[in-house]
Amino acid sequence: MKDMTLIVLAGGEGKRFLPFTTHKAVFPFFGLPMFAHTIADVPREISRMIIVTSPANNAAIRAFAFPIPTSTVIQQEPKGMADALRACRSSLNGPILIINADDVIDPDLLSRVVKTDAFGVIPGWKTPKHGPFGYLSLAGDRVTGIVEKPEEGKEPSPYANIVCHYIADGSVLMSELSKTKSTADDVYEKALSHLMAREKFIFIPYEGRVSVLKYPWHVLDVMQTLFTGMEKYKGKNVILKNNVVIEGPVYIEDGVKIFENSKIVGPCYIGKNTIIGNNNIIRAAHIGADCVTGFNTDITRSYIGDHCWFHSNYIGDSVLEGNVSMGSGAVLANLRLDDGEIIPGRNKLGAMIGKGVRIGVNASVMPGVTIGKNSFIGSGVILDKNLPEDSFCMSNPGYVVTKNKKIAPVRNIHV
Amino acid sequence: MKDMTLIVLAGGEGKRFLPFTTHKAVFPFFGLPMFAHTIADVPREISRMIIVTSPANNAAIRAFAFPIPTSTVIQQEPKGMADALRACRSSLNGPILIINADDVIDPDLLSRVVKTDAFGVIPGWKTPKHGPFGYLSLAGDRVTGIVEKPEEGKEPSPYANIVCHYIADGSVLMSELSKTKSTADDVYEKALSHLMAREKFIFIPYEGRVSVLKYPWHVLDVMQTLFTGMEKYKGKNVILKNNVVIEGPVYIEDGVKIFENSKIVGPCYIGKNTIIGNNNIIRAAHIGADCVTGFNTDITRSYIGDHCWFHSNYIGDSVLEGNVSMGSGAVLANLRLDDGEIIPGRNKLGAMIGKGVRIGVNASVMPGVTIGKNSFIGSGVILDKNLPEDSFCMSNPGYVVTKNKKIAPVRNIHV
Amino acid sequence: MKDMTLIVLAGGEGKRFLPFTTHKAVFPFFGLPMFAHTIADVPREISRMIIVTSPANNAAIRAFAFPIPTSTVIQQEPKGMADALRACRSSLNGPILIINADDVIDPDLLSRVVKTDAFGVIPGWKTPKHGPFGYLSLAGDRVTGIVEKPEEGKEPSPYANIVCHYIADGSVLMSELSKTKSTADDVYEKALSHLMAREKFIFIPYEGRVSVLKYPWHVLDVMQTLFTGMEKYKGKNVILKNNVVIEGPVYIEDGVKIFENSKIVGPCYIGKNTIIGNNNIIRAAHIGADCVTGFNTDITRSYIGDHCWFHSNYIGDSVLEGNVSMGSGAVLANLRLDDGEIIPGRNKLGAMIGKGVRIGVNASVMPGVTIGKNSFIGSGVILDKNLPEDSFCMSNPGYVVTKNKKIAPVRNIHV
Repeated sequence: MKDMTLIVLAGGEGKRFLPFTTHKAVFPFFGLPMFAHTIADVPREISRMIIVTSPANNAAIRAFAFPIPTSTVIQQEPKGMADALRACRSSLNGPILIINADDVIDPDLLSRVVKTDAFGVIPGWKTPKHGPFGYLSLAGDRVTGIVEKPEEGKEPSPYANIVCHYIADGSVLMSELSKTKSTADDVYEKALSHLMAREKFIFIPYEGRVSVLKYPWHVLDVMQTLFTGMEKYKGKNVILKNNVVIEGPVYIEDGVKIFENSKIVGPCYIGKNTIIGNNNIIRAAHIGADCVTGFNTDITRSYIGDHCWFHSNYIGDSVLEGNVSMGSGAVLANLRLDDGEIIPGRNKLGAMIGKGVRIGVNASVMPGVTIGKNSFIGSGVILDKNLPEDSFCMSNPGYVVTKNKKIAPVRNIHV
Repeated sequence: MKDMTLIVLAGGEGKRFLPFTTHKAVFPFFGLPMFAHTIADVPREISRMIIVTSPANNAAIRAFAFPIPTSTVIQQEPKGMADALRACRSSLNGPILIINADDVIDPDLLSRVVKTDAFGVIPGWKTPKHGPFGYLSLAGDRVTGIVEKPEEGKEPSPYANIVCHYIADGSVLMSELSKTKSTADDVYEKALSHLMAREKFIFIPYEGRVSVLKYPWHVLDVMQTLFTGMEKYKGKNVILKNNVVIEGPVYIEDGVKIFENSKIVGPCYIGKNTIIGNNNIIRAAHIGADCVTGFNTDITRSYIGDHCWFHSNYIGDSVLEGNVSMGSGAVLANLRLDDGEIIPGRNKLGAMIGKGVRIGVNASVMPGVTIGKNSFIGSGVILDKNLPEDSFCMSNPGYVVTKNKKIAPVRNIHV
Repeated sequence: MKDMTLIVLAGGEGKRFLPFTTHKAVFPFFGLPMFAHTIADVPREISRMIIVTSPANNAAIRAFAFPIPTSTVIQQEPKGMADALRACRSSLNGPILIINADDVIDPDLLSRVVKTDAFGVIPGWKTPKHGPFGYLSLAGDRVTGIVEKPEEGKEPSPYANIVCHYIADGSVLMSELSKTKSTADDVYEKALSHLMAREKFIFIPYEGRVSVLKYPWHVLDVMQTLFTGMEKYKGKNVILKNNVVIEGPVYIEDGVKIFENSKIVGPCYIGKNTIIGNNNIIRAAHIGADCVTGFNTDITRSYIGDHCWFHSNYIGDSVLEGNVSMGSGAVLANLRLDDGEIIPGRNKLGAMIGKGVRIGVNASVMPGVTIGKNSFIGSGVILDKNLPEDSFCMSNPGYVVTKNKKIAPVRNIHV
């Protein structure tokens, strides 16, 4: 059995992840930081773990209760994968497995990779269409190179590189990295390609789930991916009032209360102590801890972080990082009038909202809009553009007041 | 027993029926075109049928599976009733009964008319107040003339002409029509008046239902009239989820699904495969086929055509022709603030909406407004004027963005 | 046993009570005017009652069926408490107890006061913080003076004067009043202070409920105070439809109907013949008689007068005097975006709305706004300022109409 070190890459800056300011690697799903899902089922061949963190998320990551001996190193600046590996250089010897903290892949891929006997093992994922990936050059069952982001039609194979790389001796990789130069952010891939000329790298085709957390709406993809295989669960001190319907796999944490006439359609996760009010419908959604959904709210295919408050809202295909409140009647629209694409590939997408945002009553946020942290959106605003953080956005319709010449009669009841 | 031809007048232009572009004679109710209701119970004295169509609706009418031998003729231009009859001249002999395709009258009136023995039979309806009708001149049990649209106070009797006219010999009428000239659109009525001087026309007083499809809001009247006598029905493969309440005569077609906590108060019709979402209330309404009402929608005294989608809407006293979608929180208002009349005789009236219309979230359409086909109404718009077809209507409030100096505290749960 | 006269002060102008035009003393709670609650449990030592009314409320007060012999006098102008007492001068002899019609105090305080043996008895309430009250000067168990509205820190004691004053001989007070002069509105307090120098006034500390009806939002305080001790009750001809939940002390008057899936969380009062529609939630609220709450309304911690109509509204921490209607989707907001104070001491407060007001669909009224009687607020208005009576307030956003170049595709059902 291999005595292997798992290298988890959890550094990087995450600018493309704005308006969310929680680092991707520690973005919470189901009450656990992202990386905890990535390392949930490490194979027993792995004896220890090194996590390359950013200065911002190191403390949060160190606080985690790891199942195996784990150390962290800090990558001081977000200078790419080779730099991240250099940060843990002294520990880089013997067999290593390198994964990204914020990629979701099936745990059994790790097992397949570590059980394959070769100097290196590289899995590849057959992309349904061209994308900005690294593509593998293949020769029989061998990987002979990685081409970063080739133009469409110039891919060496249809297989994209998945960062779940086994290398029999980390010190050889380290040595190669120190010799490799590049003006682009592909030192690691170049170094690997050099090694592939000398050593045998086995290709493993992979057909499982792949979810990468890069842009804010990827939270929805990762959420849906993590829902796979989730089972129905009901924690302690859960109160379900009369006529509550729970359908499919719904994971309910301790202390949750669900009030009358609400329906939860799985897959759904409901965090600790959260209150689902009366007459709600919650579908395919993640609701964090300590939330109150209020009366008559519809949350569909959305991610809601902790400490959010709602009241008669519609929240469709949206991500709310946490501590977001919406007034009665506020809506996060998720569909254009012409049913057209909001971002490439998605014709249903709501809002992406950072922490500490407040949205007034009867406000409307247009599909795909992002709202930076600590921004307030006034009542009745129709927000159709992205809003930077710390903004105060107030409706500017005005109204005209004249003399009323009509009388409002008392109505009789006749239903 | 008479061997009679039924002449069904289904031509005409229907400009006053805008924003609806479906021809009145084929406007669908309960899954059947208008004229199908008119001829639903023809007396057995009628052996064959001629339908005078417009060029636009001929194909739709011919596609219908008629219960008796039926032919159609096309009235090329909408030039009135005499012109329509001339279009079927070659077949106009022997006893005939003339009705309008888009008038709803009790089927037993047809029976009474055809069973009465005279050269002609004309029923009259006692109008509760003056209107733009043809009024009958009466002498005992005889009709002696028809006065088109007399001024108020100059009506020859309180009885308005109902087009359910029996004439013992169509060729006599044909011949009279060819001799009659008029500058106004009353050739038919003048010709009949001439015949009345020579032949006996019996008057039949009628006290049943009369509903004419002329203006768009008449769809609501015809709908309510057709509801009369409708019985409770549940088709095949209907799914009613938990805590659904069905009250009174509700006609549910095959494949309908009704979700939890929704209430349907009859008379109501729900078309094939339509989905009534959770927590809806539907009252005295017609919902077409393949609709989705979504979560928390209230549809009251309204006509909804096929392929409409809703989500947390209020739709009161409105007509939606088909393929209309409304975003969450959009409202079709049906009552003025002062409870006053919206059109003469109606203080409750919503919107009249053509096909292919989209209405954004939290938009409001004012009472009595019409929206032409293929128009889009943006989120938050307060639409207070009629909108022509193919319009794109966008709210123009703008909003002001300044620096936010407040912080949104995390709220504690205390319900 | 004392043969005592109860003097109930129910005059005054109530300008600060606007936008409500019902006089404070007769403002209805639970179907009874305010003063009826004040005199609900008078001790049996009281043999007769004099009510000092304003010209405006005299008729309403006289119409009440009093449990003991009662006369009214009219205070012609709102000139303060001494003037009010002078208005009933001829009857002011023997033992008297003076109370305000619009203060809510525990009935047992009246009993304690009348049972205490002294020339005068004055209860005091230990204020939690400084306020614009009359403060008591104390010496042992004696009250030695009343200081009207001292500056903060200059209070003679922490006890504020509660107008529940026993005086053994009304004629002595009368005589003192006639001798006392002041440029401020404190003649009564000065006269009492003079008497205290000669006669023994006993101090009674009071720790019960105190609720004063002065500003419009005080209606909410008085309502909550009157809820104390209310018990569950169901009148005659009450109809509760399927899946209605009634929790806690809810008082339901005759003829009330509550429709499916509605929940009432006590303490609540629901007036005669009121209809609570489907899927409502009503919490800690007073709903008057002949109201219709419509579909899907949320009324929380609010006072609703008679003849109000709602439809899918949120009404939080608000007071609606009566004959108010709100269109579908209209919201009375009750919380600022920053959760800050709306008026001192309250971070939750909705709207204060006079009689005869109409609010259009999807309108939003900002926290703490007052709306004068007979005002209309148009659809979609975001009302952020107080509105005087008889106003017509119309949204002024406008919208832009251009040519629509998109087509709305027919959607397939795939739920």
